[in-house]
Amino acid sequence: MVQVADLPRNDTGIATVLGVLKQQFGDRCQTGTSIREQHGHTTTWIRNQAPDAVIFAGSTQEVSDIVTACAAHKVPIIAYGTGTSLEGNVNAPAGGICIDMTQMDMVLEVNAGDLDCRVQPGVTREALNTHLRDQGLFFPIDPGANASLGGMAATRASGTNAVRYGTMKDNVLSLEVVLADGSIIRTASRARKSSAGYDLTRLMVGSEGTLGIITEITLRLQGIPEAISAASCSFPSVSAASQTVMAVIQYGLPVARIELLDATVVKALNAYSKLSLPETPLLLLEFHGSEASVVEQSETFGMLADEHGGSGYHATSTTEERNKLWQARHDAYWAMLAYRPGAKGVATDVCVPISRLADAVGAAEIKAQELRLIAPVVGHAGDGNFHASLLLDMDDADEVARGQQFVSWLNDLAISMGGTCTGEHGIGQGKRAYLVKELGAGTVGVMAAIKHALDPDNILNPGKILPN
Amino acid sequence: MVQVADLPRNDTGIATVLGVLKQQFGDRCQTGTSIREQHGHTTTWIRNQAPDAVIFAGSTQEVSDIVTACAAHKVPIIAYGTGTSLEGNVNAPAGGICIDMTQMDMVLEVNAGDLDCRVQPGVTREALNTHLRDQGLFFPIDPGANASLGGMAATRASGTNAVRYGTMKDNVLSLEVVLADGSIIRTASRARKSSAGYDLTRLMVGSEGTLGIITEITLRLQGIPEAISAASCSFPSVSAASQTVMAVIQYGLPVARIELLDATVVKALNAYSKLSLPETPLLLLEFHGSEASVVEQSETFGMLADEHGGSGYHATSTTEERNKLWQARHDAYWAMLAYRPGAKGVATDVCVPISRLADAVGAAEIKAQELRLIAPVVGHAGDGNFHASLLLDMDDADEVARGQQFVSWLNDLAISMGGTCTGEHGIGQGKRAYLVKELGAGTVGVMAAIKHALDPDNILNPGKILPN
Repeated sequence: MVQVADLPRNDTGIATVLGVLKQQFGDRCQTGTSIREQHGHTTTWIRNQAPDAVIFAGSTQEVSDIVTACAAHKVPIIAYGTGTSLEGNVNAPAGGICIDMTQMDMVLEVNAGDLDCRVQPGVTREALNTHLRDQGLFFPIDPGANASLGGMAATRASGTNAVRYGTMKDNVLSLEVVLADGSIIRTASRARKSSAGYDLTRLMVGSEGTLGIITEITLRLQGIPEAISAASCSFPSVSAASQTVMAVIQYGLPVARIELLDATVVKALNAYSKLSLPETPLLLLEFHGSEASVVEQSETFGMLADEHGGSGYHATSTTEERNKLWQARHDAYWAMLAYRPGAKGVATDVCVPISRLADAVGAAEIKAQELRLIAPVVGHAGDGNFHASLLLDMDDADEVARGQQFVSWLNDLAISMGGTCTGEHGIGQGKRAYLVKELGAGTVGVMAAIKHALDPDNILNPGKILPN
Repeated sequence: MVQVADLPRNDTGIATVLGVLKQQFGDRCQTGTSIREQHGHTTTWIRNQAPDAVIFAGSTQEVSDIVTACAAHKVPIIAYGTGTSLEGNVNAPAGGICIDMTQMDMVLEVNAGDLDCRVQPGVTREALNTHLRDQGLFFPIDPGANASLGGMAATRASGTNAVRYGTMKDNVLSLEVVLADGSIIRTASRARKSSAGYDLTRLMVGSEGTLGIITEITLRLQGIPEAISAASCSFPSVSAASQTVMAVIQYGLPVARIELLDATVVKALNAYSKLSLPETPLLLLEFHGSEASVVEQSETFGMLADEHGGSGYHATSTTEERNKLWQARHDAYWAMLAYRPGAKGVATDVCVPISRLADAVGAAEIKAQELRLIAPVVGHAGDGNFHASLLLDMDDADEVARGQQFVSWLNDLAISMGGTCTGEHGIGQGKRAYLVKELGAGTVGVMAAIKHALDPDNILNPGKILPN
């Protein structure tokens, strides 16, 4: 495990608040070890720091009640969706109360005519899309996990569709938020655009529960395209594949997805998903549009791929083949774990200007070799965002140390290229030091001033994003 | 004129700072009445409140020097681009120093491979597009005026292309900002997406110079489309035209522009621009894409227009005809002024959910008639954003009072429909009361807390956005 520091606890306050909240919430306030640990960090090498209690909230008013009680006694509050974050974002380094949002899972309103909807934070993206399907609508943001929409907003998530549809910042119209004093605000109207004051919607999106607790989300939706086609294309090198991605972006081809898998990932997928892809770097693509437009996009891509040594280009518009392809992409994490049985997967998440993508991925592969690490690469290549996922033997302290060295090196590399240490996973606990490296102490000082203005007692998800 | 209150002046501080800054800036620090009044509000019925001096800044360091001097003596600072804002955004109700950015007009860097560029705030959108043209790139955001990019970022501007390319919030990657203490920060890296902490870029975009002075802007660019086609289509009523726009959005047709002009505007344009359009409501469109895609989009639009009673649909892909059409659109303001010689134009700027567009425009036309006002409507209809522009005889106090009644009624209407009182012009002085109506005192209280945290002495553009 990677150590993260505990923060000073307010044991008296926590005990007092727990007494109050147990009264109000009864069985919905849980303090068993197992459930508490499930609500700390569980996904990567960062050690688990469990909260003192987990409360299953049922309404905005209940969230407000919890926050009001905690505010009175300066007790930490951590909002929890599905726990799929990767940087310790839901850990409780100072203990406190975890608010589990999974029971706030109602789709409150769908305005098909306006292409928007209003949901509670515990609705998962898959549940929303199931709900929307018979109205011909979908919500495009697609991180690997079936995350909750509240969690996705809180970490400014994105995923495979971002190259076409943007990230959560582009798809949240408005939020209802419980502030650190328990008061409830709405950040914006339902208008598609607005110049009405400071953009509190975008300030809350990506704030990881440190500025407020998201209790409702108004989202932009998309019409399900008339036609969807998927494709795959093999390349002789990661560099050739990356060059193709750069050409696609520069051409302005409106691809809906363009994902890069390196040779190791393809090999792992062949084994795990019973595929027979050539074991070289691969691009997976999806095109959305009218029937004619999808055919044209696919042909244009084929031409650009040809120019960069692409081979075995195969497009399909049957739903079955398409689902198989994308299921394989989403299984990449599990395939990688199966590739090295017993290993822990630790994702990195850098994002660089697209012109530096080939350089960055190439350098990462060489560095992993140098450090004798297995770090297969998958990437949302159209955004310049890629994940070199370390497969680590956690019992080998030296290997873990080399893994930490790799992560640190990669974050520094991305920053030196004008990029970011996190394209979509957030800062959490794991990347706080890099936030300062990336943006400078002055910029992080502004973030700290905002945090202090909105949460003077630092009760909202303490120990995240900002240096302690 | 509409009165706006003066705020208490710090005459001693202003005199002291002026002494210091005249030393440093010499002739670039101007205090003549005429130049000072040119740098107050000049565009609408809000009265002019001139600053005490205008300084033509040449670099970020100079801006920092000015802010540092003003901070030491608690003197107001107002950043100024081209002065085309409409809500008193550049007025100086407490006096102070106006920093004119027009000499900071360099395009610092164009990264064609990454589709981004870095510019100084005084570069205008037309100057940038001229600079970019031979690289096959363009910057899409297009308010009517040839505004400066710093001003456009500060007011979260948009315009005719927003339905396809978004607003300034979607097209600014990063900002360099001088804070209220004179320190200089950069808000983000150049990566196309990021989850690195609070979204200070989006916080600064739309903050109207009240949280910091924008001294550099990193912008996303677009490749010039392979094909562009423009079109116009007449409708029997504003309602029929609006229904068509709703159908286009719901269909997911990726129009680049879809602008609504009511019958009065068409009549004014026929006279002003020597056109012979049927004097009924009109939609103007633009399609971007490949040759085939543009043809297909145009055909799909024709079909949707047919279903809603559209007539005289005419598409063109010749540059000359297209430019003529859009020149007419951009001349609408002048055509309206010529329609009632001697009148003052006062723009409104509400934005409603698209399903309410026909209702809102229809109600506005009826209300204008009731109040015996001329208020022709042009709209960025694809976003639900429209401007009913009052043409007022400013010597008729009763008419001016009815105009104020109309503006107030329209803002309230938009808010009651789940929309906003300002789609793209900002709050400035003119819409502060509506900001509270729209978002509530709690939300505006959060904005005030952020303002206080970043500018505790309220020296950055005081009297704007927030209630005094």
